[in-house]
Order: sequence, then structure tokens, then C-alpha cells
Amino acid sequence: MNPRNSGRAAADLDWLEGGITAVPGILAGGVAAGIKPSGKKDLALIYSSAPARVAAAFTSNQVKGAPVLVSMEHARGGLAQAIVASSGCSNVCTGERGIRDAREMTKLVGELLRIPATHVLVASTGVIGVPLPMDKIRAALPRLVKSLSPQGGRVAAEAILTTDTRPKEAALRLEVSGRPVTIGGIAKGVGMIEPHLATMFCFVATDAGVGRGALGAVVRRAVDRSFNRATVDGDQSTSDTVAVLANGLAENTPLEAGGRGLRQLAAGLEALMTKLARMLVADGEGATKLVSITVRGAASRRDALLAARSVANSPLVKTAIYGQDPNWGRIMMALGKSAARVDQEKVSIAFNDEPVAVRGMLKEGVRLERVREIMGGQEYDIAIDLGLGRGEDRVWTCDLSEEYVRINGKYTT
Amino acid sequence: MNPRNSGRAAADLDWLEGGITAVPGILAGGVAAGIKPSGKKDLALIYSSAPARVAAAFTSNQVKGAPVLVSMEHARGGLAQAIVASSGCSNVCTGERGIRDAREMTKLVGELLRIPATHVLVASTGVIGVPLPMDKIRAALPRLVKSLSPQGGRVAAEAILTTDTRPKEAALRLEVSGRPVTIGGIAKGVGMIEPHLATMFCFVATDAGVGRGALGAVVRRAVDRSFNRATVDGDQSTSDTVAVLANGLAENTPLEAGGRGLRQLAAGLEALMTKLARMLVADGEGATKLVSITVRGAASRRDALLAARSVANSPLVKTAIYGQDPNWGRIMMALGKSAARVDQEKVSIAFNDEPVAVRGMLKEGVRLERVREIMGGQEYDIAIDLGLGRGEDRVWTCDLSEEYVRINGKYTT
Repeated sequence: MNPRNSGRAAADLDWLEGGITAVPGILAGGVAAGIKPSGKKDLALIYSSAPARVAAAFTSNQVKGAPVLVSMEHARGGLAQAIVASSGCSNVCTGERGIRDAREMTKLVGELLRIPATHVLVASTGVIGVPLPMDKIRAALPRLVKSLSPQGGRVAAEAILTTDTRPKEAALRLEVSGRPVTIGGIAKGVGMIEPHLATMFCFVATDAGVGRGALGAVVRRAVDRSFNRATVDGDQSTSDTVAVLANGLAENTPLEAGGRGLRQLAAGLEALMTKLARMLVADGEGATKLVSITVRGAASRRDALLAARSVANSPLVKTAIYGQDPNWGRIMMALGKSAARVDQEKVSIAFNDEPVAVRGMLKEGVRLERVREIMGGQEYDIAIDLGLGRGEDRVWTCDLSEEYVRINGKYTT
Repeated sequence: MNPRNSGRAAADLDWLEGGITAVPGILAGGVAAGIKPSGKKDLALIYSSAPARVAAAFTSNQVKGAPVLVSMEHARGGLAQAIVASSGCSNVCTGERGIRDAREMTKLVGELLRIPATHVLVASTGVIGVPLPMDKIRAALPRLVKSLSPQGGRVAAEAILTTDTRPKEAALRLEVSGRPVTIGGIAKGVGMIEPHLATMFCFVATDAGVGRGALGAVVRRAVDRSFNRATVDGDQSTSDTVAVLANGLAENTPLEAGGRGLRQLAAGLEALMTKLARMLVADGEGATKLVSITVRGAASRRDALLAARSVANSPLVKTAIYGQDPNWGRIMMALGKSAARVDQEKVSIAFNDEPVAVRGMLKEGVRLERVREIMGGQEYDIAIDLGLGRGEDRVWTCDLSEEYVRINGKYTT
């Protein structure tokens, strides 16, 4: 991991084995309900033994799935105790029936767990435009609740996958206001079932106690610095959901806005989400590389992000990354087409620490063999200096391979 | 061709064989100068026997090649008589030397043709960041000028190609203010040599006489309605150049702004450029399909274009087109992520005339077999109605295939 990413918190972070169930009071489980034709696990449940503060972030796509709409409503209440997630059918573009089905899932889970339906969040990923097979889900929910266990994080991480090639989980411990606090989470990345829609989920829990209203800003900021800096194909799902539960079992004095403890928790959340976001990009559809696009010297931070995103989403840059081709001209092109201010005569480009272009031209004595070697690795940085100001930002991207096209084009419904 | 595209002018347009040399007074030629390692033709020349009004449009990328900068300066003078174009090296990101080389090409061509260097436009496509092999170009220019012929349009169309699979030319005749006028052009699309940068050229000539200052607005509008509505991968070259020469040999009273004759010429230019733009998309890198994305019912025309572009550039939509998968959910996703106003419950989607989604949901009784049949063809329309207003626009796109990735990723320098 780039030491710059987690520097603020690195000194007092302990990475743990496991994921969301590393957090005290968190149980999880997963079962195969028969939503996925493959028969793989497709229904996951996360449960906190104590009611938790909740803050969540949802897709900004104007087309939103029914589970997103229902979870937005429930999250607004500020408390949650369970998250039920299905994979194989996204329950998007399903009209009134979709909303009814999503509500029913929260109601049934609430009844089984003896908690209010409004304390249950719901998320679904997979085929779009097709109603959920509610008969199968109704039949499976009692089994799902029975599957809950303090070791169930991994199973839940598996049950939310679609075309992901591996489950994604992470957990860490840090000191918050002098007390040990655990944060754990699971995530899934872009993928689809049959194939339909890329969707990103991240469910996180912590035993930290957080005051009413203090969690939202921290979660928004951590999401903005992690998942909002990750791109696989520039497309944006209708189902993206990040939810953080803080159940207070660490028995710390509830953290409040402006306090040092909340800043510590924020650093931990950002480190955890950054780790999960990078896992997600590295496992992007067809991806073989994880590349950080770092832009410095931009006229503003906003310009730095615009420039980094333009490079990170350019199909020509992404195919060059795949081909391990030190094609800095495509990076120049992608910078020039961005909405950021760019002066081609001031641009420098390096791969890791190896300079390739200086003042918009090929560096004299450039060591292209060394650059090709860097590009042969699985992870590296493309460092761009626009030479205009002090704006700085970073985006993670992956390469564009034939496999991406095969996954999304060839395996038709 | 979609009858809507050319309806205004279709009644009085005659499509001709050939391309730019179908226009009276236009000669063209091409030779192999040795810029391309393959030994294929790589230097093209277009010459008008009479000085012509010129209007040109160039890439809006902030990073511009040296030939673009020199041609912008020359086109500002309003008159031109020749266009020299090279393929195999784009002369982009080459600093002062690049500017000197581009200027020298116009100077040498001017001397050989006995016209001012400022009446020569220059365009280059290919490798970026590498200087032009000027020794080879200097040696080839006399041969290039000797190759000029009234049948040379095809050869010139070949000499500007990079990864294009076929030359692109078109010509038509129409009545302008009661006189027959010819318009002809050649174009090249996205492609690269080794591979580096996608570049689009279109060179057009007409024998119409156009008053000073009247051509610019007409060309800008035609470019906006044709090439600016075409996309292959959403990337934008540093070298894109469209130039139109009007040499007046039709001996009409010079066309002036606001007159019916100029509107007629404008319709002809738009029809010709539309035809070339569609040829360019159909021959996009790795493309197997040409698909029109038509958006109606948008809150504004600008919204219609934003929505159409978002669909046309979505990798998930483009891979579904490739896979012939009637995956309307991805179209909903791309609409929702666009900056256009979208209300998912008002969106309808059809493939040609076959409806798939109504009010944001799968149409009852949808005939997916019929949709798959339409998607099996080489050309079709995706017709989207946002149900919000009267804004309407259209973009042409192609599919994203493994071949695109191979062309741009695997054939490294």
C-alpha cells in the first residue's frame, strides 16, 4: 500500500485477520437461496447484537434500485441492527413491486430477529429489470438467520459476490480516545451475474460508540476518499451501497463531532475503506493491474481529481496499461481532454519514480526498459505533475483487458 | 442511412462515385515516404487549381499537435490551396522542433506548388512524442507533388490511414442557387500505428463559391452535427482536423450568410460529413456494429445530447452491443449517471421500432427474440424517450470488442 494513503493513521493501526465479524457483537451468515442459477450462496445477513448508529452512502445515479430507496429511508432514522443483502437479482427498474419486495425483506428479517423493520437495511445486486424471486427468499430467510455466527463474516462476504473472483474483507484495531476499537468490513466490487449491472457494496461495523449525528460526516468523507476514488470502467451502478454500523460495545464515551476520538475513528475508517477499495479495483472485471493515478501541481484540488479521473477512465490509457506499453502520449491526451486546466509544456509524467515525460516531451535519456519493467508489475503509480499549482489528488484504476469484454459482452443472458 | 439524418437535403442530393477529386479543380495524390515502418503510403496531398476559401475545425483537446497549431494559424487567413497530411507520426508533444518541422512541410509544399506557405494546411497522425523523420519527408515531397492527379482522391484517402481497415471517401452533387455544385471529401477514423493516438481527419472540397467569412459558421455547424456526434471510445485526439476548401470553380455568385444558397450548401456539407462520420464509426477500432443512440423527450436539447453521449460511451452498453445482449438495464444505468435530467419512471427504450422498456420497466409481452434479431444486424437504432420535454439529439457509436483491446493493448511499441 502506498504509505501516503494511510500515513496519518499508520502509526496506531493494527490490521487483523478476518472482516466484519472481527468486531465485537457482530454476527454474520450467508446461504444459497436459489436466486443465482449457479446454486452459489446469494443471501447474506449482518447482525449487531446491540442497536447501532448507522450512516450510509448510496449511488448518485438518478436511476436507483428499490433496495437503495428503502435503505435510504431506513438509514435516515439513524439506527440499524441488521443488513440483508442478496446477489443474483438487483431489484432495479421493478416499479412498485420492487419497493414492496424490498420492504418485505426488511420486515421478515426484522420479525425473525425481533427488531423493527426500519432497523434493517437491504441491498441487492445482479440482474436488472427482473423481480426478486420472493418465494425463494421467503423460504430461505429462517435458514439465513440461523446461519448467523461470530465467525460468519467470510460466508457473508462470499454470499454478496457476483463476478468478483474472491471475497473481500478487512479488519483493524486502533486506539480511539485511549480505548481499543475494532473496525471490520466486507465489500464486493464490479461484477454481474448474467451479466447485468456492476454494483459495489461495502458493509462496515465498529464497536465504537458514536454520538447521534456524528457518524454521517465521517462516513461521507471516508467514502469520498476511498470508493469515490476507485474506478473500473467509469460506469456507475444503480445499487451502490456503503453502510457503517457503530454498535458502541467498546463502551467508550460516545464520540462527538470536533473531538480527537472521532478524528481517530475517521482515520481508521478511511484506512479500512481504502484497503477494501483497492481490493475492489484489483479484482475489477478482467483486471490484471492496480494502478494509482496521482496528479500534483494542479491549479486546484478539483482540477487534480478531474485530471486523474480522465486518465483513469481513458480506454486508450487502460489498454496501454494492459499491454504494458509506456504510452505516455495517451496520458497527455487524456489530460488534455479533461476539464482540468492543462498546459502541455508544463506536464511531467513518471511511472513510480522513473520519469518519462518532462515539460510535455519525452525525457532525454528516458529509460523505457526500466518503465516497461515497472509496468510489468501488478501494482504501480503513474505520477503526473501539471506544474500549475498545488492541487493534488489520486484515483485507483485497473487495466482494460479482453477479459473485460468477454465478461460483459460474450456471456449473454 | 437514417432518413431523418439527411431529410432536409435528400430530395436534391445526388451521391457520386469517388471522393474529393470528384470536385472540379481538385487534384490529389499520395506516396510512401517511409514514415510507416510497413512501407505503406503515408504522405497525402490535396491541391486546388484555384485558391479556395477555407474553414477548418480542430481538436478541442488542450494538448494540440504542432501541425494543428500551424494549420490553425494558416486557416485564420481564410484562403488555402493545398493540404499535406502524413500518417505514421503525429508530431505531437515535440516542442519547438515539432513546430519548425510542421512549418517546413508547408513551406516546401508551397515552393513546389508555387503558392504561399500560408496557403498550405498540414496534418499528421500516428506516433506521439517522436519527431517527424524530416529527411524522408523532404526527399518524398517532389514525388508527392508529381503524384497529383484528378483521379488521385482514393490514393490520398489511403495515404492518411492508420489502423483504419478501409479508405473513406464520399462525393455528392446538389443545386445551390440553381447551379450544380459538387462536394467531395476523404476521411480517416480512429486508429493508430504502433499504436499511439486515435486521430480523425476529414478533408472536404467544393467548387461552390463562398463569400469571405461565410464558410466558417457553415463548417462549424456541419462538424457539430456529424463528427461531433460520433464516438468510438470517448477519447479525443490531439490532432483531429477537419478542413473544407471552396474553390469557386462553379462560378456561382459567392454565397453569403443568410442566403438560401448557403443553406443549400450547408445541407450538402452536413450530408457528406454525416456519411463520412458514420463510415468512421463503422470502421472504429475493433467495431462490428454501427448504432445510433437517439434521445427524445429530454428536458432540453443539451440534455438529450448529454444522455445520448453517456449511453454511447458506456463500456457496459458497448460490450452489450457487441454481445448482442438486449441489456436495457445498462442503458438505464448510463442514462441515470449522465448529467441530463432523468426520471426513471418516465423512460422508454426501443431497439429500432421494437419497444423493450416502458416507464422504466421491462415492457409486458416484450419480444426479446425480435430484439436479439435486430441486435444481430450491423446497423440499428437505440431509441430512448425520456418523457420529460421536447429535447432531441443523436449520437453514433460502435461496440467494444476484444479486438479493440488487442489493437490498443497488445500490439505494443
